[in-house]
Amino acid sequence: MSTFVVVGGDAAGMSAASKAKRDDPDLDVVVFEKGEWVSYGACGLPYYIKGEIQTLEELVSVTPEQFREKRDIDLRTGHEVVDIDPDDRVVTARSDDGELRQSYDHLLIATGAKAIVPPIDGADIEGVYTLGSMTDGKELRDFVARSREESPLEQPDSGPACHFLESCEGAVGVVGGGYIGIEMAEALAANDFEVHLFQRGSQVLKTFSGATSERVAEHLREQDVALYLDSEVEAFDGTDSIEAVRTADERVEVEMALLGTGVRPRTELAEDAGIKLGPTGAIATDEYRETNRADVYAAGDCAEAEHVVTGEPAYVPLALTANRHGRAVGQTVAGTPAMGGGVAGTAAVKAFEIEAARTGLIDHEIARNAGFDPVTETIKAKSRAGYYPEGGTVRVTLTADRDSGRVLGGSLVSEYGEGAVHRSHALVGAVTERITVSELSNYDLAYAPPFNTTWDPILTAGKVLDSKL
Amino acid sequence: MSTFVVVGGDAAGMSAASKAKRDDPDLDVVVFEKGEWVSYGACGLPYYIKGEIQTLEELVSVTPEQFREKRDIDLRTGHEVVDIDPDDRVVTARSDDGELRQSYDHLLIATGAKAIVPPIDGADIEGVYTLGSMTDGKELRDFVARSREESPLEQPDSGPACHFLESCEGAVGVVGGGYIGIEMAEALAANDFEVHLFQRGSQVLKTFSGATSERVAEHLREQDVALYLDSEVEAFDGTDSIEAVRTADERVEVEMALLGTGVRPRTELAEDAGIKLGPTGAIATDEYRETNRADVYAAGDCAEAEHVVTGEPAYVPLALTANRHGRAVGQTVAGTPAMGGGVAGTAAVKAFEIEAARTGLIDHEIARNAGFDPVTETIKAKSRAGYYPEGGTVRVTLTADRDSGRVLGGSLVSEYGEGAVHRSHALVGAVTERITVSELSNYDLAYAPPFNTTWDPILTAGKVLDSKL
Repeated sequence: MSTFVVVGGDAAGMSAASKAKRDDPDLDVVVFEKGEWVSYGACGLPYYIKGEIQTLEELVSVTPEQFREKRDIDLRTGHEVVDIDPDDRVVTARSDDGELRQSYDHLLIATGAKAIVPPIDGADIEGVYTLGSMTDGKELRDFVARSREESPLEQPDSGPACHFLESCEGAVGVVGGGYIGIEMAEALAANDFEVHLFQRGSQVLKTFSGATSERVAEHLREQDVALYLDSEVEAFDGTDSIEAVRTADERVEVEMALLGTGVRPRTELAEDAGIKLGPTGAIATDEYRETNRADVYAAGDCAEAEHVVTGEPAYVPLALTANRHGRAVGQTVAGTPAMGGGVAGTAAVKAFEIEAARTGLIDHEIARNAGFDPVTETIKAKSRAGYYPEGGTVRVTLTADRDSGRVLGGSLVSEYGEGAVHRSHALVGAVTERITVSELSNYDLAYAPPFNTTWDPILTAGKVLDSKL
Repeated sequence: MSTFVVVGGDAAGMSAASKAKRDDPDLDVVVFEKGEWVSYGACGLPYYIKGEIQTLEELVSVTPEQFREKRDIDLRTGHEVVDIDPDDRVVTARSDDGELRQSYDHLLIATGAKAIVPPIDGADIEGVYTLGSMTDGKELRDFVARSREESPLEQPDSGPACHFLESCEGAVGVVGGGYIGIEMAEALAANDFEVHLFQRGSQVLKTFSGATSERVAEHLREQDVALYLDSEVEAFDGTDSIEAVRTADERVEVEMALLGTGVRPRTELAEDAGIKLGPTGAIATDEYRETNRADVYAAGDCAEAEHVVTGEPAYVPLALTANRHGRAVGQTVAGTPAMGGGVAGTAAVKAFEIEAARTGLIDHEIARNAGFDPVTETIKAKSRAGYYPEGGTVRVTLTADRDSGRVLGGSLVSEYGEGAVHRSHALVGAVTERITVSELSNYDLAYAPPFNTTWDPILTAGKVLDSKL
């Protein structure tokens, strides 16, 4: 009987464990997770802090008991793997009961990522938070409740904007205008905090198109977020706890600050075992997610993967890739090799009352470095037929290669519910299948007045960009 | 100087005229339109009758004056082309001023389609309507106003369900459960008519999957539409005007009946000129929309086009194809040959509070006739993350070829606003690019909790179907 050992019990790890056991019930599947939570939807944490979700348990898709009893997986929470020996095919795990050694035939490293704490003065004082784990989420929700002198939290109002209190007093700082920063700005504003958002560079959502980012920035301001662009945070002032956020130009008094400055892969365990990292600093794998050591795989936020546009390694630590690659490794280990597909750098975010998505290559410098001659156009179109009630506006940015006409990437933004994110599905296919802008603009996409103009904004963007090539 | 003559001034015709003139301003562009309306959004008529749109003029995207003055197109409304002579390259048009002959270098036949009036006893009596033209739309709106003894119409309430009157009295019959039938059921129900919908076959929206159609039928009943499946209408009873709809089993008293039993291409003019029809009964063209006569093109609802899945001719008379192919012909005539792409049979419809879309091949008999071995699966999934508020359900049907794994078609249905239609964009790409279900299920689609589960329902459907191949 063969043994499959998984290090890390979140998206990639539990997807792999579940798929392997389902495909090959004879396999022994052992998962080591250092914490107590497994298979949780960290993406839901901002909505828990906002108050739209009442308990952390709601974020858990499958409980440890279900993995153990229904899926027959030997899941050991509270076990931290401290050593991997790929020569002897043994891992060492540490728990409150001491150390144990577990041999394996196949190993998956799914150690995830950790929130980056940038080298800012005062980043370690009380009141400066990150949001990388369920524990972080709990602390932030407690902060919200405590700060509002409401404990336990009242039930929020129904509807998308829920408020624990009517009045607005406390100011909070959010450092970083990525997904976490923006989702947390929404969560905190909904709880009547005065939100100050600091972005080091000139655009929020820096991987999205400039046009998308500008619309998001404009909307953040419409929602009374104080937005500071080109504003690197230099220090958090405070003695016992945080008192202010400082940049070169500003000093903003706050009662809390959240660091939403990205994540980095947890690679120490792999590195110590002689497993190679790639150019992105994450664990390098082939298309089957296998590392440089035979039968040792890596998937999820600790690993890089090939980009569907460039074919080169990319580090895009997001939930779907973790699920997809974890599942593929599980299938491979169970006997049917599966690759799980590359990454397109696709991402989506809701920001208050708007939504945005992006995929592929948009940035011209990145595109040029990959050997393309990028051309970009942005169009603004109605989200429904012009005569149909209650529509909004969709802005579509498309980037293509001038010579080949190939679609390299795209970025969309619209009012929430007007389809920027779901429409982006068409662009994921376009970049993955390497079609031209002309081909895209001739797609027979669905049309009816309640959903789009006769030419969906995606098609209009294709036509306009095609005319510029 | 070269002359481009267009017969028919709606979507295909005006798209061609506009594109040709824009690309080659030296071209003489003459459009003959027998009616007074050009370039109108017939797809909006149900919403005009419903009362969500106040005037027919709102459905017009570009007015005749704009075509003439801004786009420099010689648009002659009230001119019916009665003869085409492809040997001498001359058309004959008739107007109130008599007949004129116009020579051409390039000709586009864009005569559109007309509503089918099936051979039902009493189909010609007063109170039996079709919805094929602006005039039809006006008559139906007048019927609604007259029947409610409200003339002129009151302003409807805001919001999607608007009512001219509070009470409900009149019963109306809708014959046919396609887009027009369902959209008109919504429009009439919103005006407090008791709607009886008769469908000859066993499913409404017969080109959609059975699972989609069942959900739509269920929803029609939830909305108090009296739905009669497998119920062919045999007669309309009435002397001066309609009194009842009769099937083999039922006699339902109504004050009006609408025929939504499809359209057929207007081909008489082309046939008389020796232009060939294809196997579907519509005008045959090559991929550049050129007919069997040199420099004579046909596009829009009068023409067939190659299906992207089968490569065979198909007749799918819908607005986007008319626009796309008209535009392609305009570009070709102006000197840069363009094909405009095939049809995927994509369609979308809103039915009261739900939305549905379909693309490609779903029906097994059709798929088998095209040489495939079809396998179909339907999944039901949450439209947003399970823990995220206010989500709904998306049902996705996918059909693939067993041997190759190729995606042949798909069908989706969800609550209105939960993305069935926009998500279908991903499937249009899949069938057009001939990818496999496995490839589709590994797409890096956008994910965030307010928009989908980590695996979008499209991906889940792909995984499930892939496991059945």
